[in-house]
Amino acid sequence: MNENNRYIKGLDNLSKIDGEQGQLVIDSLSGIAEDIGMYIIEFAFGDIYDRKTLDLKQREMITITSLLSQGGTENQLRVHINGSLNVGLSKEEIIEIFIQCIPYVGFPRVLNATSIALEIFAGK
Amino acid sequence: MNENNRYIKGLDNLSKIDGEQGQLVIDSLSGIAEDIGMYIIEFAFGDIYDRKTLDLKQREMITITSLLSQGGTENQLRVHINGSLNVGLSKEEIIEIFIQCIPYVGFPRVLNATSIALEIFAGK
Amino acid sequence: MNENNRYIKGLDNLSKIDGEQGQLVIDSLSGIAEDIGMYIIEFAFGDIYDRKTLDLKQREMITITSLLSQGGTENQLRVHINGSLNVGLSKEEIIEIFIQCIPYVGFPRVLNATSIALEIFAGK
Amino acid sequence: MNENNRYIKGLDNLSKIDGEQGQLVIDSLSGIAEDIGMYIIEFAFGDIYDRKTLDLKQREMITITSLLSQGGTENQLRVHINGSLNVGLSKEEIIEIFIQCIPYVGFPRVLNATSIALEIFAGK
Amino acid sequence: MNENNRYIKGLDNLSKIDGEQGQLVIDSLSGIAEDIGMYIIEFAFGDIYDRKTLDLKQREMITITSLLSQGGTENQLRVHINGSLNVGLSKEEIIEIFIQCIPYVGFPRVLNATSIALEIFAGK
Amino acid sequence: MNENNRYIKGLDNLSKIDGEQGQLVIDSLSGIAEDIGMYIIEFAFGDIYDRKTLDLKQREMITITSLLSQGGTENQLRVHINGSLNVGLSKEEIIEIFIQCIPYVGFPRVLNATSIALEIFAGK
Repeated sequence: MNENNRYIKGLDNLSKIDGEQGQLVIDSLSGIAEDIGMYIIEFAFGDIYDRKTLDLKQREMITITSLLSQGGTENQLRVHINGSLNVGLSKEEIIEIFIQCIPYVGFPRVLNATSIALEIFAGK
Repeated sequence: MNENNRYIKGLDNLSKIDGEQGQLVIDSLSGIAEDIGMYIIEFAFGDIYDRKTLDLKQREMITITSLLSQGGTENQLRVHINGSLNVGLSKEEIIEIFIQCIPYVGFPRVLNATSIALEIFAGK
Repeated sequence: MNENNRYIKGLDNLSKIDGEQGQLVIDSLSGIAEDIGMYIIEFAFGDIYDRKTLDLKQREMITITSLLSQGGTENQLRVHINGSLNVGLSKEEIIEIFIQCIPYVGFPRVLNATSIALEIFAGK
Repeated sequence: MNENNRYIKGLDNLSKIDGEQGQLVIDSLSGIAEDIGMYIIEFAFGDIYDRKTLDLKQREMITITSLLSQGGTENQLRVHINGSLNVGLSKEEIIEIFIQCIPYVGFPRVLNATSIALEIFAGK
Repeated sequence: MNENNRYIKGLDNLSKIDGEQGQLVIDSLSGIAEDIGMYIIEFAFGDIYDRKTLDLKQREMITITSLLSQGGTENQLRVHINGSLNVGLSKEEIIEIFIQCIPYVGFPRVLNATSIALEIFAGK
Repeated sequence: MNENNRYIKGLDNLSKIDGEQGQLVIDSLSGIAEDIGMYIIEFAFGDIYDRKTLDLKQREMITITSLLSQGGTENQLRVHINGSLNVGLSKEEIIEIFIQCIPYVGFPRVLNATSIALEIFAGK
């Protein structure tokens, strides 16, 4: 696959998963930082999200788990909780993913992610 | 549900998911630290793993993602990669979970988890 | 001890330690996420804070150290710095706990925790 | 070198590197927390920044990399991205440092640092 | 206080707290890295451990909490669990400190620290 | 640039920077995990290390800083401390990079990285 195809495929996946919010992240990276947006599209969404073996619901489940577990990624959680709803995870499943993390990361990071999720759910 | 039931249910879940390896962790905590083993059984496996909404395959998927993303949890990854196989995740799915984490945690933590998985797969 | 007792004991400890602020966290978790609040009360405050060997001042000392050291836990530090004052730690002791962490986590996380503490102290 | 000299040298380095913003951090630490400001001046800027082998541009390059990689250090990144510009790193180099971190920490922490940098660059 | 005094006081505190093990860390840093050992002695043990407001038992309690909460600090936990025993914390208190961390960092980091503690206790 | 070129360029950069050790990492990923090796070559070494604005010495300086600051990345530090020497950083500069991190991450992670560096230097 040539570079151009990776970009097109990535843009398509980004739009399917993160919708408008994903595009806003890319737009915020124009100018001096636009290569970072390009790598997000080509590598994260063109290469990785386009793979087989796991479907998009599973990939978003893994992504929000990884973001919650690292901490300090509130903006990315906001994008990917929306993305999780877009690809078909239910609100109950999203909260349950966070609950499954409690024994592994403790309450603080789970509370941070939950408070973002509840904000998003309230706005829907 | 009374305390006794939480313990019995937790022990049952622990054995179903982590098998012999989970029991070895609990055994290593006898004596002065045995309450930690009790909380793992009662809270992690009695309360959390026993919930609805997500099945055990999904819970192990979330658990190994959380462990990988935190770093420094090699021993727990060892137990839960085995646990993931026990509850029906395939080797391909486990590696694919790690690949989905690359854009979110970078290569180093993914390599650490992968090297443990390959060791476990080689021994099966 | 049955489940009901854990909840009652936990609620009592939560109120003793974190006061109104702890209750606000629990209230924010009503509805879809209310089980997270239940686990905080039953497990964190019913099981763990209710143990012997360490008193509440020591437990809060350990808690704010853990929150500072993880980073990205500003909301929880806010609750537990207040909790630390409630159970009898002095402002000087709280700042001194943060200073003791400097060699182990560096200045950035210590500055983040200190700035929250100074805000809280100013409001008292 | 006696204590007094460490403090004077540190204050001089702080002003040279972080300018007004560094002084604001120190000022925010007056009163009960002023010893933390003293250690920042004496140890971080008096001892460490005053060493040979690396120049100030290299030291700021290392500092913003360390802050980005830890996560949860937005306030400190703000000070040290300004500091990086003060000691002669270009905007392009700062963004490039962040890009070099992508394979090692993933996109989320890189996006957080980039968004602070773009804000600062826009204000110049 | 002049530099020389900081070093002497730091060496004295290091020996009082970490005993032989602390000296082994310093010895391992001779040659090209010996300045790191000097800063540990002067800053960590000369400046910080020598402060008032908290006693050595409290300082070690804070230190092992911070090390546990960061993860990936097994070697330092080994030194400071020994240090904790040296300054008068009991085995029961050390395990209880780790238990208090469970709600804040989850089980994996607590298990890692506990397993080092049990190893040390077995050797005494 | 087409995919094939990214791979060839990446392999060339990997060999130039990490030498034999980088190749060993890739080799360890054959079979079920070989795509991870492919992404390391194509994305990390083909896309990122091949960019302008920073030279290879600066890129390795940033990389070992990021690895040290994250913690739990001992294997990767081993490869990249060797890589740092390969591209022309001196032993003194490597240790000085670690010293510059002390105020930002504290002593434990710096000690872990230093102990790996000293091991590598001793073997040269």
